[in-house]
Amino acid sequence: MKGDGPTRILVLGGGFGGVYTALSLEKLLGREIDRGEVELGLVSRDNYIVFQPMLPEVISGSIGILDTITPIRRLCPRTNLYTRAIESIDTKRRRVTAAAGFGSQQLALPYDHLVIALGNVTSFAGQPGLPEHALPFKYLGDALVLRNHAIHVLEEADIERDAEMRRSLLTFVVAGGGFSGVEAVAELNDFVRAAARSFRNLAPEEIKVVLLHAGDLILPELPASLASFAQRLLAKRGVEIRLNARLAGATGDAALLEGGGRIPTRTLVSTVPSGPNPLVSALPCRKERGRLVTDEHLQVPDHPGLWAVGDCALIIDHQTGRPSPPTAQHAVREARCVAHNIAATLRGAARRTFAFKALGKMGALGHRSAVAEVFGVKVSGFLAWWLWRTVYLMKLPGLDRKIRVAVDWTLDLLLPPDIVQLRTERSVGIRREHFEPGEVICEEGGHGDWLYIVVDGEVDVVKRLPGRGEVALRRLGRGDCFGEIALLGDHVRTATARSATAVNVLAVDRDAFQALFSSLPPLRNFFERLIEERMMPGSPGGQAAPGDRTPAPASAV
Amino acid sequence: MKGDGPTRILVLGGGFGGVYTALSLEKLLGREIDRGEVELGLVSRDNYIVFQPMLPEVISGSIGILDTITPIRRLCPRTNLYTRAIESIDTKRRRVTAAAGFGSQQLALPYDHLVIALGNVTSFAGQPGLPEHALPFKYLGDALVLRNHAIHVLEEADIERDAEMRRSLLTFVVAGGGFSGVEAVAELNDFVRAAARSFRNLAPEEIKVVLLHAGDLILPELPASLASFAQRLLAKRGVEIRLNARLAGATGDAALLEGGGRIPTRTLVSTVPSGPNPLVSALPCRKERGRLVTDEHLQVPDHPGLWAVGDCALIIDHQTGRPSPPTAQHAVREARCVAHNIAATLRGAARRTFAFKALGKMGALGHRSAVAEVFGVKVSGFLAWWLWRTVYLMKLPGLDRKIRVAVDWTLDLLLPPDIVQLRTERSVGIRREHFEPGEVICEEGGHGDWLYIVVDGEVDVVKRLPGRGEVALRRLGRGDCFGEIALLGDHVRTATARSATAVNVLAVDRDAFQALFSSLPPLRNFFERLIEERMMPGSPGGQAAPGDRTPAPASAV
Repeated sequence: MKGDGPTRILVLGGGFGGVYTALSLEKLLGREIDRGEVELGLVSRDNYIVFQPMLPEVISGSIGILDTITPIRRLCPRTNLYTRAIESIDTKRRRVTAAAGFGSQQLALPYDHLVIALGNVTSFAGQPGLPEHALPFKYLGDALVLRNHAIHVLEEADIERDAEMRRSLLTFVVAGGGFSGVEAVAELNDFVRAAARSFRNLAPEEIKVVLLHAGDLILPELPASLASFAQRLLAKRGVEIRLNARLAGATGDAALLEGGGRIPTRTLVSTVPSGPNPLVSALPCRKERGRLVTDEHLQVPDHPGLWAVGDCALIIDHQTGRPSPPTAQHAVREARCVAHNIAATLRGAARRTFAFKALGKMGALGHRSAVAEVFGVKVSGFLAWWLWRTVYLMKLPGLDRKIRVAVDWTLDLLLPPDIVQLRTERSVGIRREHFEPGEVICEEGGHGDWLYIVVDGEVDVVKRLPGRGEVALRRLGRGDCFGEIALLGDHVRTATARSATAVNVLAVDRDAFQALFSSLPPLRNFFERLIEERMMPGSPGGQAAPGDRTPAPASAV
Repeated sequence: MKGDGPTRILVLGGGFGGVYTALSLEKLLGREIDRGEVELGLVSRDNYIVFQPMLPEVISGSIGILDTITPIRRLCPRTNLYTRAIESIDTKRRRVTAAAGFGSQQLALPYDHLVIALGNVTSFAGQPGLPEHALPFKYLGDALVLRNHAIHVLEEADIERDAEMRRSLLTFVVAGGGFSGVEAVAELNDFVRAAARSFRNLAPEEIKVVLLHAGDLILPELPASLASFAQRLLAKRGVEIRLNARLAGATGDAALLEGGGRIPTRTLVSTVPSGPNPLVSALPCRKERGRLVTDEHLQVPDHPGLWAVGDCALIIDHQTGRPSPPTAQHAVREARCVAHNIAATLRGAARRTFAFKALGKMGALGHRSAVAEVFGVKVSGFLAWWLWRTVYLMKLPGLDRKIRVAVDWTLDLLLPPDIVQLRTERSVGIRREHFEPGEVICEEGGHGDWLYIVVDGEVDVVKRLPGRGEVALRRLGRGDCFGEIALLGDHVRTATARSATAVNVLAVDRDAFQALFSSLPPLRNFFERLIEERMMPGSPGGQAAPGDRTPAPASAV
């Protein structure tokens, strides 16, 4: 141990890797912590750990929302928990900076040992329209958002009179046929079909649930026979499985496939893309495919005191020589190993080499069935489901959680599913949207609730004129706005805006627009001038149709 | 019945008044609805009804969040439910317009009979700082926000090093000593004190919970002896009750009292102010104190086919001659009466006159105690609490809810409280803030995450200079901005901004700022010019201190 002050161990990340590292360190170094010789800290975005395998069940509300998650403070009572975002990691000065809280001061956290357990992040980069329109499925918040969204589209479909709109509202698309996509689509399918029974004007056969998978067979993690079983079962329950289909992009009302396919939908869930955490990318250490390279003791080579576990680390199993897969089982074993090695380093004892053989794999398929491979034995159907529940219940951290989940599961056997739409989000104010060429962004006669600013691409403004059909009024490009008249005057849209190319826009809602533009004089002046120009008949701003001799009509959207 | 098409009955509002009207109409007119002679519609913001008396328990998480609410579709299977916002009511053309959904088309809902059950709305109008900084407590979303906020301030207090900031984080203020304020403060007090035990660096005695009440004795709805009992009990549990204290306003870090008092806090809950629903105010009918005047049959005089129930209606009890109080008990009785009278009108039968004597009143005080007055008998303590739970369990709509809540209550006797902070909100982008004179809006050396625009009031920009103390740089007024430099350059604040008068500002966060200002050229030009001016030493924009001969320093915030 150092002579001056306590030894400071800092863990970054509140997933299985990070939390189990802190938990194991508390056990190994409990006495040193209590004597003040060691200080243990954990930085986590949330103050709880999500038990990921149960996330899909949040969609159907079948587990009380709070029961899937365990407060970190309860699990790790001797750890100082910092629920702040991390801004930077300085390995030279051995210091992590956390974001400012209520005050405006950042928090500097110096360390002697640092464990990086930051996992990876959802990343839709490079796929047009996905960041704007696809729903991710990684955090608890994502599951809640998806649940509310599914109920919202059912609510809207129930009162929608337009057949095409109704079909797109009742189509649900999940991209990615691995464990997390399959479990999500199974729960979503069960939920929307059961919930639809509570709606007066919805028939279950109108509902379409699609799973997109890039390969020949879903669940590539499992043996082919189990995967085929799962595939047949999902199909029997009404999930349309599209094999060798890859998501290429999205708009507000469709999923776009590679090769040009298009599925009209208002609900697109993507479980596929994950990228390295930007904080890990910024570290001056060796990485392979974005993952931090570690030695057999889980330490980062040439950086004494720097350790890494979980999905953000490349960890070679020294029995098999292969990299460890990114599962919770492995993260927990890695956490125990790294905790042992840090304690051994402090005490000058021998370190341990990491090796672990997974016990098994299992995936729930909804409706009391599952597939599993445990110690090499394949199980499917109700038995696998029962096994799934029992194993996960045993693994769920904390006794009170175990009791709550067991009670919930028992009630669910008896009670109908929940269709309450739980909204806590406030209005966003500003959002991004993506359109493919030829799509209507806003329609003449429609209600105006958004101002649009073109970020890139080109937009045509057109108007229907009696006896002359559709007339082009003007073409807009980067930095141009449209929609301001309907927004300022509370009128319906006076023209239609349609994308000429692929277009990204910024949409500003009525409240945000009025707040900003009434308090910022230069903005007010700009919009007043713009509206004056566009409202003026025959103004240079309003490009009349070719060959047109009469004054151009008012051309604002 | 009319000859042409069905008779259309439309109910507005998803509270107890609206939902029980639809429920009663289904019972009375079930056969006519099934034969297509009557169409029944209900427009509600949410697809569930909140059982308000249980809202405070959501704070402590002691009832599963979903269990306090019942889906309206389950209660009223023969009613068409429209979960949309209402935009206008046209009593002349007998037509209600609902907001646009996923498409851009509004929904027109024609009616023959219209029941207004729109309740009232939270309204902080006229109290400076309350709309920006007080937490309302009316909807389920409010209770969830309060719960997350309480956990958030505990998380921050646990790692805060500044004693003053720490005190304000650990102070919780509830304004309003009626039923809803008392129940909220009782649950909040229990919750934060129990939760603090899970935090390493918080001592329960550091926590301060304050109840502000305008009168001499809390719970004016109850007999004085019961109210005194409740007051003593809350005080014993650590709630500081300030009598004859009225909230006058708020800032981001304090509750302001009438007479000049100031309580530093980051958590201010206001249960007091409610105003008439703007849709009701806009109706061309007689109102008294914002409530729709009704006749003894609950019909709006001179408007055949227009009816009103619940908190938005002025309903005279024709036995006592006094107006009915705004309680759920009364709303339910009024709903049954109005449903009977509408059915009677359709059938040409006799209408009923409204009269109802309340059965009793009760309020929970947390920690297994309550006060109640039932059929004139006063009860307090554990017996009243047991009565409270039993009565409310019986009243809770839906058998599955009853079972879930009963199970939850049983588990709560055994298991510790939950401290999971459940965040689903996305970043707001733009928010309003209020400052009283002499407050620091942003501080030199602090971290810059917001751009500020002055909506009204005046702001001084000052800077500390070595050997000269604080130097005034400039005074800003309506429409001026500050904070743009730290935001654009990711620097710390280069000066301090302090309110010279009471100030309202619009704060725009980094993401919203960058999205808007990088895609809107006039805005980009404006800010580039502004920054150039302010960064230039000796510029006319930077007012040097009086008597100062040297060039003024860079003066941006």
